[in-house]
Order: sequence, then structure tokens, then C-alpha cells
Amino acid sequence: MERIAVFPGSFDPITRGHESVVLRAIDLFDKIIIAVGTNANKPGFFPLDKRIEWIKKTFKEYDKIEIRNFEGLTIDFCREIGAKFLLRGIRTGADFEYERSIAQMNKALMQEIETVFILTTPELTPISSTILRDIYKHGGDIKPFIPKAIHGDY
Amino acid sequence: MERIAVFPGSFDPITRGHESVVLRAIDLFDKIIIAVGTNANKPGFFPLDKRIEWIKKTFKEYDKIEIRNFEGLTIDFCREIGAKFLLRGIRTGADFEYERSIAQMNKALMQEIETVFILTTPELTPISSTILRDIYKHGGDIKPFIPKAIHGDY
Amino acid sequence: MERIAVFPGSFDPITRGHESVVLRAIDLFDKIIIAVGTNANKPGFFPLDKRIEWIKKTFKEYDKIEIRNFEGLTIDFCREIGAKFLLRGIRTGADFEYERSIAQMNKALMQEIETVFILTTPELTPISSTILRDIYKHGGDIKPFIPKAIHGDY
Amino acid sequence: MERIAVFPGSFDPITRGHESVVLRAIDLFDKIIIAVGTNANKPGFFPLDKRIEWIKKTFKEYDKIEIRNFEGLTIDFCREIGAKFLLRGIRTGADFEYERSIAQMNKALMQEIETVFILTTPELTPISSTILRDIYKHGGDIKPFIPKAIHGDY
Amino acid sequence: MERIAVFPGSFDPITRGHESVVLRAIDLFDKIIIAVGTNANKPGFFPLDKRIEWIKKTFKEYDKIEIRNFEGLTIDFCREIGAKFLLRGIRTGADFEYERSIAQMNKALMQEIETVFILTTPELTPISSTILRDIYKHGGDIKPFIPKAIHGDY
Amino acid sequence: MERIAVFPGSFDPITRGHESVVLRAIDLFDKIIIAVGTNANKPGFFPLDKRIEWIKKTFKEYDKIEIRNFEGLTIDFCREIGAKFLLRGIRTGADFEYERSIAQMNKALMQEIETVFILTTPELTPISSTILRDIYKHGGDIKPFIPKAIHGDY
Repeated sequence: MERIAVFPGSFDPITRGHESVVLRAIDLFDKIIIAVGTNANKPGFFPLDKRIEWIKKTFKEYDKIEIRNFEGLTIDFCREIGAKFLLRGIRTGADFEYERSIAQMNKALMQEIETVFILTTPELTPISSTILRDIYKHGGDIKPFIPKAIHGDY
Repeated sequence: MERIAVFPGSFDPITRGHESVVLRAIDLFDKIIIAVGTNANKPGFFPLDKRIEWIKKTFKEYDKIEIRNFEGLTIDFCREIGAKFLLRGIRTGADFEYERSIAQMNKALMQEIETVFILTTPELTPISSTILRDIYKHGGDIKPFIPKAIHGDY
Repeated sequence: MERIAVFPGSFDPITRGHESVVLRAIDLFDKIIIAVGTNANKPGFFPLDKRIEWIKKTFKEYDKIEIRNFEGLTIDFCREIGAKFLLRGIRTGADFEYERSIAQMNKALMQEIETVFILTTPELTPISSTILRDIYKHGGDIKPFIPKAIHGDY
Repeated sequence: MERIAVFPGSFDPITRGHESVVLRAIDLFDKIIIAVGTNANKPGFFPLDKRIEWIKKTFKEYDKIEIRNFEGLTIDFCREIGAKFLLRGIRTGADFEYERSIAQMNKALMQEIETVFILTTPELTPISSTILRDIYKHGGDIKPFIPKAIHGDY
Repeated sequence: MERIAVFPGSFDPITRGHESVVLRAIDLFDKIIIAVGTNANKPGFFPLDKRIEWIKKTFKEYDKIEIRNFEGLTIDFCREIGAKFLLRGIRTGADFEYERSIAQMNKALMQEIETVFILTTPELTPISSTILRDIYKHGGDIKPFIPKAIHGDY
Repeated sequence: MERIAVFPGSFDPITRGHESVVLRAIDLFDKIIIAVGTNANKPGFFPLDKRIEWIKKTFKEYDKIEIRNFEGLTIDFCREIGAKFLLRGIRTGADFEYERSIAQMNKALMQEIETVFILTTPELTPISSTILRDIYKHGGDIKPFIPKAIHGDY
């Protein structure tokens, strides 16, 4: 059985925290699909094609990593592509409570799915896309918090 | 003194978690009033009459349980109907922090009110109306998470 | 059905927080049994008879309140005296996580038991018997943290 | 070196909790600048000039305290006025997780800034501006939760 | 590369929670080594050979699972047997905070180790070995909380 | 008024986390007294004179920092030396809940004391003396977690 994991999110934008979680989990799976969730009613802050381009640049050296976008329930996407694992990073206790609910609901909806959690490294713990967008909107420098591969793009 | 409890919420929609909290608390009170809070500016996702209908079906066999809707402060509604107890379910630590603030503010505004907390059963802990609405919007099946009495209504 | 609640603890010593929880719950039950758990191998800091005496003084004006001591599982004591409710106070999120485990295990062991939680009032939140014993051992004044009825006993 | 602290927030409206944090920290700094963050796209509930007027009344007897408003990143405002300290109050564990992220991001963006945390007093812990606005909108009395100096203004 | 995970603990005794975590993670690894940590100074409650026997019975049908005991640092044991992954179950937010510290310290001591977290299923969340020992000492029935394969052994 | 802070602890042993908290708070106070709490009944793991020597080496270049040991209540020590501030580092949400209780009890016992909290830097967050002692006992290398000034002492 091929071990396929889906790493879902809005990646608006991708952060060094996201990058770190994927790279730390890379030996655990045969393939990791970074799945950018989209919602016709909530377009997000950065355009979808930009978000995808940045993820592609970040992981361009890794054959195991694919980038996809999807609309709808994450588990429906997992079923469609035959993934048995969901990969999630956890930063804080507040994250944990939320992720636990989502993971347990996903399990109830799709018995064969398993959510696997990886911790972010301590120095990346405070980074969230929400805070990055706030800094960006106010003209602050977000370079220290995004992957090196895309430093030239902001 | 009759022991009357108000169980307030938006019930958008009622979940198996709500059902379980009310039924577990039923021996504690002489009457439980399920109070659907409404807000002219925030209509909610499911229509108010549907939400009330589903609650009625869920508890139709229980004489002690009444369903009402109200607008305004919960404690004003409690005063109006002469209830001395607020009933709340707690699922997680994050819930707890939020519920504590609300309960302590209510106590400050109305000295004679007491908030009584019941835990959800472990297997119902991950269920929240917010997540259910999300699943529903994406065409997922929410039956496993809503009371049996209303399985035919979705 | 008579509504009997057991309020279990070691009460080593009873605090204003304990007092407040019992008094706030008093209208909810027909009888509250304050049950001092004892353990032949862990005698506690203050002698058992002192601890019981202090609880008796604290609640001497309340007919609904009885004081008992017990050894063994709390639910066995509940069964023995025919109590269907456990009363617990919660102060903090850390308390909550612990109390939830205990309550859910008790429910698994005795289906008909229900644990009811009352919050401590905000200004009594930081008080715990553990911290009180520490202050007492170091010669500090614990009067501000224990019930008024026993201020003369320390 | 003069010890200047910025106490940032939207103060919509100022609460007894805010008042308490500032007064408890007053001996720690040579100057405390209460900085009302504004955002052209989010006007807030109470008008900016009202919010500032209420803060001024609250602290009118304290020479060390200045009131300012600013738009943009808090750390840019700190740089502009030469402040090395950010002052924040923490009420609950949920607050703590959020404040930690913000403080660590600010530190990453401005190495010389230090965030100093003061706890709210227990009886003010449940008070938040969000809950106050809710009570106010529903016609409830918010006087018990706002500074005495502005009781005449609501 | 063979994916070997160590699932360390004292398993005093093994619970249905432990069993569930291992079985849910079984497709993720090529081998899972259940490693019973021992400490000459802290013998534990149940004898080591009993604890190991119960784990063996629980997983006797799974070729991928091995049982070992070890003394010393978990990461030294991982190095010795060539394991790159640590497997841990998380039940509550309090667990999470503790596990995070341990995982981050392990990462600091052994860069190539990765800790992978699996959640316990909701209905097993309240179960901990500590509480089980307590129930057992007081003559309570722990069968509902331990793996079926060892129900005959208590 | 001179701003004197007491930074109390057992420092068994001092960690890079302790070092970081003191150095980040150094501009906030005129004097910081690192106060090693001792207890005749609990001698600690490392000998008191070693613990004090290590703290002295760590801060030997800082005139503002004094090292003292004390027995009894922290607030009695504060009173004795005329300190108005307690300095504490917070690492996690669990720390926060505990520190809040202690700080609020100290405030209740000594109205004029104020506890000031500084966060540890993210990469030092997982370090605790308890875990360090565990690593040390098992022959692990604790150098990455203790101040550079004392690397030669272990």
C-alpha cells in the first residue's frame, strides 16, 4: 500500500511553519499532496494562482510532493485521490483543541482516514498566516516568516 | 421553589451533543426551557422555524422540556420567566474558558442566577453546530451528528 | 425522587472556594453530602477530625448539608447512600481537563451518575488547599482564604 | 534611559480590566502611552473620539499616562515614539496563547522590544470589551464593568 | 528506508487507549516497537513481566509489533535500534503541552528523530493508567478500560 | 523609588530559559535579585552551593543582578528586602494557569506586590529544570540547555 498523505490548508500565504511541517513528515509518506482548499464565496487575500505558485517554488526539489487545489470537504478530496492520511501541524494548545474536533469529525465521516500530527519547531510556533497577512497589510516585512525560496516574490 | 433551567443557544442546528446535555440534566430540574436566541441582524443559517421544529421533535416525549425563542440578553429572558438556573454543556478546555467569562458576567449582572455545567459524553465531544453547517454546505452527511428523531428531515 | 449530591474531596483544609461552591449549589439539590475521602496510606496534612470539624462549623446553619467521610471509590460511596449526582467546582482550564477525565470515568463505571459543575466566583479562583498548606507551613496567614466560621481555629 | 511602555488596544470601550492593568503597571514605567489602534476599514463600535475621551477621563489624574491613537503596526508606532516596552494584560489561558504569538512575532520584527505581561485581578477576569458591547447592544447595564470616572457617560 | 517507530511508555497497565493508538498508526510504519521504560528506583505498580505479558497478548496477532523494555533516555533507545520515529497518543490539551516539551527536547538532543502524534478516539479520551491504578487499588472493575485480549488476567 | 524585582525559583539547575528571562527583563528594573528558595525538608537534586555558583557565573558581568537564597514565603522575602515586583517567566499555557494562581494569592497576601511576566523565547520554551534533571540522571548531555558560562561545570 502506498502511503499518501494530504496536507490541507488555505496557505494564504504559505509560511515557514507549513514548510517545516511538510519537510519533517517527508520520510513518513510515499507521497504528500499539498491541497489548497478554495471556496467560491471566500476568495482569500492572496490570489489562488499566486498561493499555488509559492508552494510549488517552496517544494520544487521534492519529487514526493504534489500541489493540488480542491473545493468541498477535505475527506471527499482524500477519497477521490485515495489518500488514507491527513497531515496536520500543531503549534499551540488552542490549535490542538480545534484540530482534535476536526480530526474526530473526519474520522466519524470516513472511518479509514487517520490524522497524523507533527509539531512545528519551537522558533516557528508563533507564525500564522493570519498574523502574516496583518503585517503585510500594514506594510511590514514578512520575509523572516516565509520560505526562503519565495523571498524574491513579495 | 420550582427548579427552572434555561438552556440557551442558537441551535443552528441542534446536535446530538445538545440532546445529550439536556437529557442528562433532566433529573436535576423540574423544567428545562430550551431557549433559541435570535438576532434581527444575524438570521442564522437554518430558518428559525426549522430550528425550533427540530428541537420540538427531538424532545417531544419529555413533558418537562419547553421550547421558546427570545431576543436580547439571556439573563433578561431568565428574569422574565423566573428561571434561577442556566444550563450549559462544556466540551473542551477552549469552551470552558469562554463559558466561564459568560457565566461570571451573567452572575455580575444578576446575582441570583447560577450556571450549571454538564459535560458532553466523550464520543459527542467533537460535534459542534459550526462544523455541522460546514459539512452540510459541502454536501456531506450530517446524520451521524444530529438527533435520531430528526434524521428524516435533512 | 430526592436529589442527593455528593461533594467529594480531601478538604485539607476547607477553603472559601469550597464553601462558595456548596452554597451556590444548595438550591439545586435536596441534600448535599460533603464527603471527606480518606486513605489509610495518605493521612493528609491536617488531622481528619479537625478537617471534619471545620466543615461542620462552616455549614452548621444549613439543614440540607451533611458531612461524612469515606474510603474507596467515590462512586461506591454514591451507590451506598443512593446519590445520583456528583457536585464539583471548577476553577481553571487545568482543573477542567482533570475533572473531565474523572467525570467520564465515573460515568463509565456507574451509568446513572451525573457530575454537575459549578464555577468558583472569580475572586476565589486562585485559592487551592495545596497553596494554603504551603502558606500555613511557612507561617503565613491563611485566614483570608478560609471560611469565616473557622477563623478562630487556626 | 527612560522606560516608556505602549499599552495598545482598541478600547472599544475601555473596561475596568484595562484600567486595573495600567494602574498596576504604573510604578514599573516612567511613561505609559495608551495607544488606540485605528483601522480605516474597521471603524469600531463606539466612535474613536468617544473612546479616547473615556480613556482620558479614566486616567486624568496620572501625569505619567498619555493617550494617543495610531494606525498600522504596533511596533512601528513603538519605534516612532522610542518605546522599548509593550504592556499587555492577560486574563485567561486562551488570551495567553494569542498574546504569546503576537509578542513573539513582534520580537522577531523588532529585536529591542520587550512585552511585559500583568495579570488582571481575579474579579475583573471575565470582563472583555466584546462582551460589554454585546450587553450594551441589548440594553443591559455595563456600569459595573467600566471605570468609575466614566459612569456618567453612558 | 524502513520506517521504524518507538511507542514508549510505562504501560502500568496498558489501556484501551494505548491499544487504539498503536492500531491506528499501524499502517503508517513498517515496524512499531512498544518500549516499556523501566527505572531501577521506581518499580511501578504492576510487575514489569506482567506489564509486558499483557502488551504481548494485546498485540499477538500483529507481526509488525514488537515489545521491548529499556532503561535510560528514550532517544538513546531509538538510536540503539535505529528508529527514526517516536509515536505518541494525545488525549487532552494538558497532555499536549507536556508532550510538546518532551518532543522538542528530544528533537534538540537527536536532530533526526521525529515525533508523530495520533489522537485517541473520543470515547477512550478519559482513560489513563493513573486513574486505572486508582480504581484497581480500591477494588473497582477496570475491565471496560483495558484491551479485550487481557480481560481474563485481572 | 528604586525598582527592585525578585526572580524566585529553585534553579535546580539554572537553564538557558531562566537566563533569557532575566536578561530580557534587565532594562525594566534597577535591581534584580535572583532568589533561590530552599526547603530544609526538600534538599533538591543539585547541592545549593553549586546551584548558586552556577547562577553567579551566568550573570557575573551584570552589576544589577544579585543572587540570594531564602527559606519561607516568597512575599516575606520580598518584604524583608523591600522589593515591590516579582519577575516570572511563562513558557506554556499550563505554566500560565499555575503562575496565575500563585500571583493572585501573593497579591492577596501582600497588596503592594506586583508580578511581572516575561515570555521565554520560542526556542527555549520546551526547556524545564525537571526535564534537564531527567536527562542528566540518564547520562544525557544537558549542555544545549544550560547557560554558556557554565558549560565547563558539568
